[in-house]
Amino acid sequence: MGQADFPSWLAQHVQRVEAALEGWLPAPDAEPVVLHQAMRYAVLGGGKRVRAALVYAAGEVCITSGGGLSPAQRTALDRAAAAVELIHAYSLVHDDLPCMDDDDLRRGRPTVHKQYDEATAMLVGDALQPQAFELLAQMPIAPALIVQSVELLARAAGSVGMVGGQFVDCVSVGLALTDEQLQSMHAMKTGAMLQASILLGGVVAGASSQQRGALEDYAEAVGIAFQVADDILDAVADTATLGKTAGKDAAANKPTYVTLLGLETAGQLLEGLRKAAHEAVRPLGVQGARLGQLADFIAQRNH
Amino acid sequence: MGQADFPSWLAQHVQRVEAALEGWLPAPDAEPVVLHQAMRYAVLGGGKRVRAALVYAAGEVCITSGGGLSPAQRTALDRAAAAVELIHAYSLVHDDLPCMDDDDLRRGRPTVHKQYDEATAMLVGDALQPQAFELLAQMPIAPALIVQSVELLARAAGSVGMVGGQFVDCVSVGLALTDEQLQSMHAMKTGAMLQASILLGGVVAGASSQQRGALEDYAEAVGIAFQVADDILDAVADTATLGKTAGKDAAANKPTYVTLLGLETAGQLLEGLRKAAHEAVRPLGVQGARLGQLADFIAQRNH
Repeated sequence: MGQADFPSWLAQHVQRVEAALEGWLPAPDAEPVVLHQAMRYAVLGGGKRVRAALVYAAGEVCITSGGGLSPAQRTALDRAAAAVELIHAYSLVHDDLPCMDDDDLRRGRPTVHKQYDEATAMLVGDALQPQAFELLAQMPIAPALIVQSVELLARAAGSVGMVGGQFVDCVSVGLALTDEQLQSMHAMKTGAMLQASILLGGVVAGASSQQRGALEDYAEAVGIAFQVADDILDAVADTATLGKTAGKDAAANKPTYVTLLGLETAGQLLEGLRKAAHEAVRPLGVQGARLGQLADFIAQRNH
Repeated sequence: MGQADFPSWLAQHVQRVEAALEGWLPAPDAEPVVLHQAMRYAVLGGGKRVRAALVYAAGEVCITSGGGLSPAQRTALDRAAAAVELIHAYSLVHDDLPCMDDDDLRRGRPTVHKQYDEATAMLVGDALQPQAFELLAQMPIAPALIVQSVELLARAAGSVGMVGGQFVDCVSVGLALTDEQLQSMHAMKTGAMLQASILLGGVVAGASSQQRGALEDYAEAVGIAFQVADDILDAVADTATLGKTAGKDAAANKPTYVTLLGLETAGQLLEGLRKAAHEAVRPLGVQGARLGQLADFIAQRNH
């Protein structure tokens, strides 16, 4: 599991979740046809699939020495990976709406409400969310693990997780947040779902309590690192590289790690979090290496 | 279980679900405070709680002769009843938004986006949905029954259920639907969640396959009856009685059972469905009587 094979591991697992989403989203010719096509447009339009990769990497940590994951566990990881991507996709669709961020461009293509209309975009998001829970309910693993997974995802997606963070983000426009407030907002808005993705991989693959502990520490560092990297990218990249409108947060007077700390200090914070992630997975031995590589990828990505 | 005690049974169970919602929604002083207050405003503002009553009545069918439901089963029914009301409440909040029905009034009070703003209303709906699945995951019953419940609710709330029906409703404005198309739209939009409420009660309380069969037949009749009654009310009641804008569907040129069939034929259809509901629960014996009374209530309500 050297550094060199990480890109091919990532490509392979991105392909797995794409196939899962492609196969488990309602068919484009199933009624209501336009709604289902819009759901597929929202979900299948590329994306880095970082959350799915976290599910897989965390799940594969639980491979016991010598043995691999069972076919049922592999299918369950596919469903869990698809579920977190559905939640992420729905949140982007709603976030792009005029009453929220009012964005026209996402992943280099028109946003859902631009390609279709606002009502469709709202309903696409509303339908993707239960689809995620349906995928979890259909995992071929012990019902007790499914129940834990549903509770985990529901909390992360809800008012004390992702949606709560979006709310705080909305009402913070133009306000001067403290470092602590900014961190708390992002811990909910982005961190909760990244963290849930990691823990979900562990739950689905039957992680031991020692493994779960390491995954929790790792998740905490990665959750923040992701947002710091995102804010740095938003500040330095151009729209073409980013595939979405660059500099938008600063223009909207939204607080970011960069506006708060400056570019250099934000970079140092990011490097510290990256190292903390590596530290966290050290007890997992060789199986944890993939999670370390994924942390590097998240901290050092350029789009 | 005579006719006379139905109003007190209903009042008692409405009280139970109100207490469940009150207790299980995030506290009004929990962060983010305004989001949580808006969620409570959306959910706790009254409402007939028909879906919750269906969960309870269907669950109580499974009482074996002599014995009652266990405390765990009663708590599970409370959670399931609260869950379907959360899904219903979120759908109303989103449905009232300007990009959908654009309604200012709901249950005699300003709609959520009027009382707060559009972004808050969207996020309230987005947060209520996972809260429903969290409540199901926390039911103190066998995990396998929880998994069935999650799958049932997810399908009913999703693109081939409630949200699919709302989509078809949206794109049908101004179109002449056939009887069959109208019935299919309502079977998704309203019927799916009513049906799920009934089946959920059965699943949670451990219904036998014979009991489930009867509940399914009952659910089919009641799902349609509810919408026919709603359309008749919209046509004949005034805004004050209704607590929402009356005659709105007809004014928006939305097809209804009344515009399609005329008032008299719609009334005959409703009476036929009411009788079919009674017929369906006959095999359940005395335990089914409550479901029959609930069907009468749904068909004969005047607000």
